[in-house]
Amino acid sequence: RGGALKEDGETRGAGSSALACRAMVTAADVTVETAESRGLTGDFFEDEEEYRSALESSLSGALPDPFVRHIKLSVPAPLPEDGLSDLDRTLRALAPGDTRPVEVPLPVLRGLAGALRADSGRIGAAIVCDAEQQSLIAITPGHRNVPHYGIAVDLGTTTVAVELLDLSSGKIIAVASGYNNQVRRGVDVIGRINYASSPERLGELRAAAASSINRLAGSLAAKAVIRRDEIVAASVAGNTVMTHLFLGLDPEYLRLEPYTPTVHSVPVHSAEDLSLDIHPRAGVTIATAVGSYVGGDITAGLISTGIPGLAEGVDLFIDIGTNGEMAVGNRDFIMACACSAGPAFEGGGLTCGMRAAPGAIDRIRVDEETGAPEFGVIGGGEPAGICGSAAIDLLAELFRAGWIDSGGKLSRDRESPHLRVDGRRASYIISHNANSGVAVTEGDIDSVVRAKAAIYSAADLLLSKVGLTFADIGRVHVAGGFGRYLNIRSAVTIGLLPDIPSERFTYMGNASLKGAALMLLSGSFRKLHRDVAAMTTYVNLSNEPGYMDRYTAALFIPHTDFSRFPTVNR
Amino acid sequence: RGGALKEDGETRGAGSSALACRAMVTAADVTVETAESRGLTGDFFEDEEEYRSALESSLSGALPDPFVRHIKLSVPAPLPEDGLSDLDRTLRALAPGDTRPVEVPLPVLRGLAGALRADSGRIGAAIVCDAEQQSLIAITPGHRNVPHYGIAVDLGTTTVAVELLDLSSGKIIAVASGYNNQVRRGVDVIGRINYASSPERLGELRAAAASSINRLAGSLAAKAVIRRDEIVAASVAGNTVMTHLFLGLDPEYLRLEPYTPTVHSVPVHSAEDLSLDIHPRAGVTIATAVGSYVGGDITAGLISTGIPGLAEGVDLFIDIGTNGEMAVGNRDFIMACACSAGPAFEGGGLTCGMRAAPGAIDRIRVDEETGAPEFGVIGGGEPAGICGSAAIDLLAELFRAGWIDSGGKLSRDRESPHLRVDGRRASYIISHNANSGVAVTEGDIDSVVRAKAAIYSAADLLLSKVGLTFADIGRVHVAGGFGRYLNIRSAVTIGLLPDIPSERFTYMGNASLKGAALMLLSGSFRKLHRDVAAMTTYVNLSNEPGYMDRYTAALFIPHTDFSRFPTVNR
Repeated sequence: RGGALKEDGETRGAGSSALACRAMVTAADVTVETAESRGLTGDFFEDEEEYRSALESSLSGALPDPFVRHIKLSVPAPLPEDGLSDLDRTLRALAPGDTRPVEVPLPVLRGLAGALRADSGRIGAAIVCDAEQQSLIAITPGHRNVPHYGIAVDLGTTTVAVELLDLSSGKIIAVASGYNNQVRRGVDVIGRINYASSPERLGELRAAAASSINRLAGSLAAKAVIRRDEIVAASVAGNTVMTHLFLGLDPEYLRLEPYTPTVHSVPVHSAEDLSLDIHPRAGVTIATAVGSYVGGDITAGLISTGIPGLAEGVDLFIDIGTNGEMAVGNRDFIMACACSAGPAFEGGGLTCGMRAAPGAIDRIRVDEETGAPEFGVIGGGEPAGICGSAAIDLLAELFRAGWIDSGGKLSRDRESPHLRVDGRRASYIISHNANSGVAVTEGDIDSVVRAKAAIYSAADLLLSKVGLTFADIGRVHVAGGFGRYLNIRSAVTIGLLPDIPSERFTYMGNASLKGAALMLLSGSFRKLHRDVAAMTTYVNLSNEPGYMDRYTAALFIPHTDFSRFPTVNR
Repeated sequence: RGGALKEDGETRGAGSSALACRAMVTAADVTVETAESRGLTGDFFEDEEEYRSALESSLSGALPDPFVRHIKLSVPAPLPEDGLSDLDRTLRALAPGDTRPVEVPLPVLRGLAGALRADSGRIGAAIVCDAEQQSLIAITPGHRNVPHYGIAVDLGTTTVAVELLDLSSGKIIAVASGYNNQVRRGVDVIGRINYASSPERLGELRAAAASSINRLAGSLAAKAVIRRDEIVAASVAGNTVMTHLFLGLDPEYLRLEPYTPTVHSVPVHSAEDLSLDIHPRAGVTIATAVGSYVGGDITAGLISTGIPGLAEGVDLFIDIGTNGEMAVGNRDFIMACACSAGPAFEGGGLTCGMRAAPGAIDRIRVDEETGAPEFGVIGGGEPAGICGSAAIDLLAELFRAGWIDSGGKLSRDRESPHLRVDGRRASYIISHNANSGVAVTEGDIDSVVRAKAAIYSAADLLLSKVGLTFADIGRVHVAGGFGRYLNIRSAVTIGLLPDIPSERFTYMGNASLKGAALMLLSGSFRKLHRDVAAMTTYVNLSNEPGYMDRYTAALFIPHTDFSRFPTVNR
C-alpha cells in the first residue's frame, strides 16, 4: 500500500490489491497486507445448514436455556407501607427462591418505575444467568414477545467466525467468518505479542479484535434484518492470547516463563466494556482458559466432543489452526497442549493462500502421469487462491504421485507443464490464465510440512505423557477452519493425522464456535464447560525436551519413521 | 440576572448580586436566583474541630475499618504449571478465607500483570469492602504508603455538606458546605419532583446533585492539596427524593400513593457511574431509605445517636431541615416519619435569609423596652443576612418581649425605631446602614411558624402512634444545619421543640453527615446502619388524618394549647 505493484507487467496504483504470487514489488515503501491481498474484500457467509444440524444434534432437543433469558414478569402493585421498593418487588417476582445477588445497572433501574406502571406490573426482563451472578440488563413494559438474539464467536488468531442465534428458539440464523483484523500486525500469536509492546499498540489490537467481531455481527444483523441492540448476549471462545488481547490485557507474560496468564476465568462483562457494538449491556461470557497455551477455544471445543462424558477408552481432540491445540482424555481426566503451527492451514503464509471462501480451491487431485491438477473451486468459476484443505490435498497427491519427495522437494527428474523449476527454486502451477494464476512454491510446501509436523508431534508427545500411542485412541475428533472440506485421507498421507483406521476420525468443523454456541444456549453445557476447564491439566510443550526431537522427526512426508504410517504408500 | 437590579436607588448591572430585601426589580426579564443572591458566591469552610471531636467520640478509639481499604499484598510469584493466573494468586493473597466474589474492573485487570512484576509481587490494593461484594478498584506497584481519602456527603434538599477524611487515620481533614445546585429548580422536595417531569429535567437535577458534591469536594481537595483521584470512597446520605435524583431515578412515584420508592437499599456504584469527579472507580455507598419520606439521612443520622443501642426508655431524634425528619425508639423498635418544613431553617424563603455562613446573623437578643436587637455575626463585621438559628432566636425574643403576638403579628400598639409598619404590612429591622440592611417581615415570621409547626406536630403525632407523649422521652437528639448555634431555649419558646427539661436535649449538628462519615470509616457502623434500616418502620403523615389538626394547632407561638409549654412565659 502506498507504493506501486507491478503485476504481470502492468503497473497498479496505490490502494489496489493483487495476488502476491503474481505481483512484483517495484517500489521500496510497499506494505503488503497479505490478509487483504487475496482479492477478497468482503466477509464470507457460511452455509448455515451445516452448523444448524451440528448444533441441534448436540442439544438433542433440549429446550434452550440461554445465557441471557428474556422472561415475562408480573410484578405485584405496591401496597401502602409494605416496605417494598419497586426493585424489591421486581426481584422477588424474578427469582422467588434465589438468594444470589442480582445486579441492576443504573440505566435499567432508571426505567423501572415507569415500566412497572405502564402495564399494571407486567414487564419483560432480559437477565444474564451466570453461575456466580445475575444481571438484569433490560426491561420492557408489557408482555410482548421481545426478539432477543445472541452471538457465538470463535476469535481465532487468523479467522474470526460469528454465529447469530435466536435465543428463544435456540436456532442458528446466520453464520459469517472473516479475517481477524489483527492479522496485519502479526501472523501468529507470537507476532501479536511482539506487536502489543506498548499500551497504544495493545489498545490497537484490542480494538481490532472487537472490530473484527463487530464487522461480522453487523453483517449478520443486516442479513437477518434485526437491530444490533436486539443482540443481548455474546459467547466468545479464543486462545489465551486472543482473549487477553480482546480484554486489553498485556500478553507479554504469556510467552515468558512460567507462562502465566493474567486471568483464566473471566467474569461476565458488558458489551460496552468490551467495545462490542451490540446491546450496550449485553452479557459477554468468555470461555475459560487452562493456561497460556491452552485457551478457551479448547475448553469450548471440548464440550462439543463427547470426551468429557466418555466412560470407556480415551479420545483425542485436535483443533487445527494457526495455534494447533489438542486434548486427550475421558470423563476422568483431560490433558491438553498447544503448538504454533502458523497460518498455513488457514490460507495464511502461502504465496497464493486464502481462506475457505468463494474462489478458493478447496480440493485437488493430481494426475500421476502428467502432473495435471483437477480441482474444485468454492462457488465455482476461476480460482482466486488455495485454501488449507486443498493445500493438504495437494501435498498428499503430489507425494503419492511422486512429484514431491519425503523432504517436500519438487521433482527435478520428471517434466510437466505444471512444474516450473528455476535453478534452486521450483513451484507447482495449479492454474494460469490471463486474469489470474494459482501456484504453490517449495517454500509453501515447507510451510505446510512445518505446520503438520508441529501438530502431529504435539499430539504424539501429549499421548506419550499419559503412556499411550495413537493406536490406543478410540476416536479422534478433528476440528479446524477448513469449512466442509477436510480430506482425512490426505491429512493422514502427509503425516498431519495419525495412520489409524479412517472410521475412527470425526471431522467437526469449527469446534470452538460450536462450543461457544452451546454455552450461549444451554446451562448444562455452561456447567460442563466450567467442569472441563477445572479438570483439564495442560502440558507446556516449551518445557518438554522431547518435543523438538519429535518435531524434527515429523518434518518429512509422512514422517522419518515410515513404520508409523503403514498405509501410506508411495 | 441578565436584567438590572435597582438597589437603594443605585442601578446595578447584569451579573451583579443583591439582597432581595433591599433590591427593587426594574426590568421584566430578571431571574432572581435566591440561593446565590445572599451575597455569598463561594462555599463555606466549616470549623473542622467540632466535626473531628464529634466523630472521634463516636468511634471511641476504634481503628478505622474504612469502606474502601488500602492494603499491602505480597502476591507469590507464578510457578510453572501451578494452574494459577495472576488474578487467582492476587485474590488468594487478598482474602485467603473469603469466598465472596471479588469484582475486578477491566482497567484494574489491565494493570495487574505489570504491577505484580514491577516489585516482586508487592502491590498496594484499594478494595471496596461491602457486605455483599468486594471490588478491587485500584492497584499500585510496591509497598509505598499510598494516600487515600474518602468523602462523607450530606445531600440535603437545600444544603450539601461534604467532609474530607483520611481513610487510613480516620481523621477529618476538612469540611465544606454550600447550597444544593438544584435549589433554583424548587425550594423543597415537592418542587424538585414537579421540576423533574421530563427526562431532560430529571437529568439536569441529577447533574446538579453531582455538581454540588463535586464543587465542594474540589474545594476540599484544593484546600488539602490532594488530587481528586486520591479520593477513593464516598458515603452519601440524603432523603429519598435527593437520593433518587442523585441516581437519576424518576421521583414522581414518591409523591403518588402509595408513595413507593424505586429503591431503598442501593448497591455500591462507581463514582464514574454517578458523575462524581473523584477516582473514577471510587466506591460510592448510599445510605438506605426506609420509605419515600424517611430517607437515608435519617438512617445515617440514627446511627450517630444512641437510639439503636438504647436498652431502657425511649429517645427521640429530630432532624430539622427543609425536610423535617424524626424517629423515636430504642434497641427494640424504631419508628420514623418526615414532614415538609420548607427551607426557612436553612435560611431559604426568608427575605433576608441565608445559611449559617460568614456574614450571617446567627444569634439575637431583643431589648424588651426599646425593641433594639443585639446580635452576633458569623466571622464578625456587617451582617449580610439572617440564618436559621437567629430566626428562631428572633421569634422567641420578640415573642417574650411582646413585640409579636401568638399569631406572629408584629405589634401595632408599641413603637420602636426597629419596627416598620406600613398598613397591613410590617417588618422588624435588625440592621440598616449605607451598604446593607437586614429585616424580617411578617411573611418571614409566618414561614418560620409554619416550619416549626410542621416539625412539632409531626413529632407529636409520631409519639402518639406509640402511645407516648414528650414527657415520656428520655433524651431528644436534635440535628440540623444550624452550625454550632442552635439555642434550644429559643426553639422551645417558639414551640419548635417540646417544653421538657433542657438537660434532656442534645444538639448534634449535622447528624446525617456524621452518620455518613461513620459509615465511611467503620464496618460496625455500616452493619448498624443496615440493621437500623431493616428495623425502622415509617409512618406516612399524609395517611394520618390527625396530622393536619395537630399542625393547625401548632400554628401559634408556642402553641394554641399553652399548657403544653408551661415554662414559656410571655
